[in-house]
Amino acid sequence: MSTPKRVFNFNPGPAALPLEVLETAQAELLDFKGTDMSVMEISHRSKEFEAVIQTAEADLRELLGIPANYKVMFLQGGASLQFAMVPMNLRLAGASADYIVTGSWSRTAFKEATKLGTTRAAANTEKESFKCLPASLDLDPNAAYLHFTSNETIHGVEFFTEPTPPAGVPLVCDMSSDFISRPIDVSRYALMYAGAQKNAGPAGVVVVIARDDLLERTPANLPVMLDYKALAASGSLHNTPPAFAIYIVGLVLQWAKKLGGLAEVEKVNRRKAELVYKAIDESGGFYRGHAVPEARSIMNIPFRLPSEELEEAFAREAKSNALIGLKGHRSVGGIRASLYNAMTAAGAEELVKFMKEFQKKNG
Amino acid sequence: MSTPKRVFNFNPGPAALPLEVLETAQAELLDFKGTDMSVMEISHRSKEFEAVIQTAEADLRELLGIPANYKVMFLQGGASLQFAMVPMNLRLAGASADYIVTGSWSRTAFKEATKLGTTRAAANTEKESFKCLPASLDLDPNAAYLHFTSNETIHGVEFFTEPTPPAGVPLVCDMSSDFISRPIDVSRYALMYAGAQKNAGPAGVVVVIARDDLLERTPANLPVMLDYKALAASGSLHNTPPAFAIYIVGLVLQWAKKLGGLAEVEKVNRRKAELVYKAIDESGGFYRGHAVPEARSIMNIPFRLPSEELEEAFAREAKSNALIGLKGHRSVGGIRASLYNAMTAAGAEELVKFMKEFQKKNG
Repeated sequence: MSTPKRVFNFNPGPAALPLEVLETAQAELLDFKGTDMSVMEISHRSKEFEAVIQTAEADLRELLGIPANYKVMFLQGGASLQFAMVPMNLRLAGASADYIVTGSWSRTAFKEATKLGTTRAAANTEKESFKCLPASLDLDPNAAYLHFTSNETIHGVEFFTEPTPPAGVPLVCDMSSDFISRPIDVSRYALMYAGAQKNAGPAGVVVVIARDDLLERTPANLPVMLDYKALAASGSLHNTPPAFAIYIVGLVLQWAKKLGGLAEVEKVNRRKAELVYKAIDESGGFYRGHAVPEARSIMNIPFRLPSEELEEAFAREAKSNALIGLKGHRSVGGIRASLYNAMTAAGAEELVKFMKEFQKKNG
Repeated sequence: MSTPKRVFNFNPGPAALPLEVLETAQAELLDFKGTDMSVMEISHRSKEFEAVIQTAEADLRELLGIPANYKVMFLQGGASLQFAMVPMNLRLAGASADYIVTGSWSRTAFKEATKLGTTRAAANTEKESFKCLPASLDLDPNAAYLHFTSNETIHGVEFFTEPTPPAGVPLVCDMSSDFISRPIDVSRYALMYAGAQKNAGPAGVVVVIARDDLLERTPANLPVMLDYKALAASGSLHNTPPAFAIYIVGLVLQWAKKLGGLAEVEKVNRRKAELVYKAIDESGGFYRGHAVPEARSIMNIPFRLPSEELEEAFAREAKSNALIGLKGHRSVGGIRASLYNAMTAAGAEELVKFMKEFQKKNG
């Protein structure tokens, strides 16, 4: 096969995958490791698939530095199902849970948890149009847990330092859109979850990392597919797992290891984001970033242009220049550049070049 | 690429996929329909993915003859999550649900429903080692619904005629392992669900087909990912769907249409099953089928040999003859041949040839 053309894919998720991951998947799609079967056709209880899932877990443990007293699960239903599973499993009977609301996704997590029991907003920046992180937190010392969203995909605000919960309150994080984008100290978290379809793989699998003591909270008689304790005990193999999605996650993790691990990944991510923010800041107000500078995400950069017509023209002309997926989320409008791990520095440079040309023509 | 070697894959699920489906997926893995992106990299809200999911739904409607007053959903969590979602959505407050227990899977569905509310066994063939269908049903005329499992993957018993519920009681079916294996009258069912990884695609997506009036039963304040009404209203796009798995399901449905539809698919399936049952019946007791003849599944054929040693040798030697996945389920033992849609008649013939040779050597 000839080298494929590749667009620069700024989609917010599902998003770009590393080219070599796709090439490996393509090469072995009909014959996985000499089985003469596709990885989609082998048993999830075969030694070949065991190697896939165990290697993925081991690589993730190595990349993130996951301590031995945490379980790793590869589940289905996306972060959206975790919005329900977290309170179902972790909010002890009669207790309340605290949520930090900093954007569309944490607001949804908060709403879902509220359906199921007592929930408090420890902070809510909606009045500030989700442009910033909260100046202070109103924390419940008896909360069952404190939930936050490390990066808001739609509003482009990111926590680079975890909020500190009161002593004894477990910290729970939706890390969907900055998972494995930089090193973190896993021991500061009690539980984290991340839909894979931004940095870690395709849609169809969500990674959950939970400290062992949290699993003891799972109440009796939860349906098994919603029961962290049972799912962790089965090694994500209670029922047939989303095998192909897990396989692709495994390839992405191997690729990240080859890049030199998360410290190297973060360097590239910071460099890409700096390029785009610099272009915004040096545009004399033609481009206006949504987030305040202190809260700027290095993953998702939503920004506005002087008019909606210009925003539409920007997205359209960018697409015809092979810069794909730049239209902002329908709830916010404008433009959004998502710069996940698989976006190359060359892609960010191309975007900046296009931004400058577009401004010259239309500014 | 040269024509690949292919084994005969008798796995119970994940299972064989049609070769041409895999070849199409491979050919367009890096460039889906001229997007210069993988189908895993495109937005689930793009016109390209809309075409994927809408075409899959239209083809499924055509193949199964799904009436207009039914919704089709492509969800996550497998049939195992449906075991919980069915009672959560359909068992009206205070009501009881009836379950027909004919094997391992319907027993599990029954157990999960029992965790969440009142459940009755309308029949249970466990004392008969799940070898047969129930001789009679003890039906609750006020049941919220009647649930059955049309084909028991592990025990190899299959309903070819649906049980008849009392007037007004909706019929609910786990159709995971005989879905799209033969024509059915969808209008006899109120809701059916099927994990794709047997006849319809890879693991990671479950198809749910629900009559509109059933969706009105969904209680308020269910988590949205467990809420049929909300999921149906969103066209399976409430959150990021398992896009690649849905894409493969779409290719499988196109393949089934090209074969001539489900009447043709059933002919091949019946021919394959007849070959294997004939080999069992003509073996003079060397091979003993698990199910009684009246209940024999045309999808999964579990059978025993005179000793466990011979069973192990059978599975091992079969594998070295490129007949894969014949070991029985760990809960039942013995041998199981799964003959899903993608298994060719040639595969069934090879298996029968091997059975005869093995018996000659060891009988």
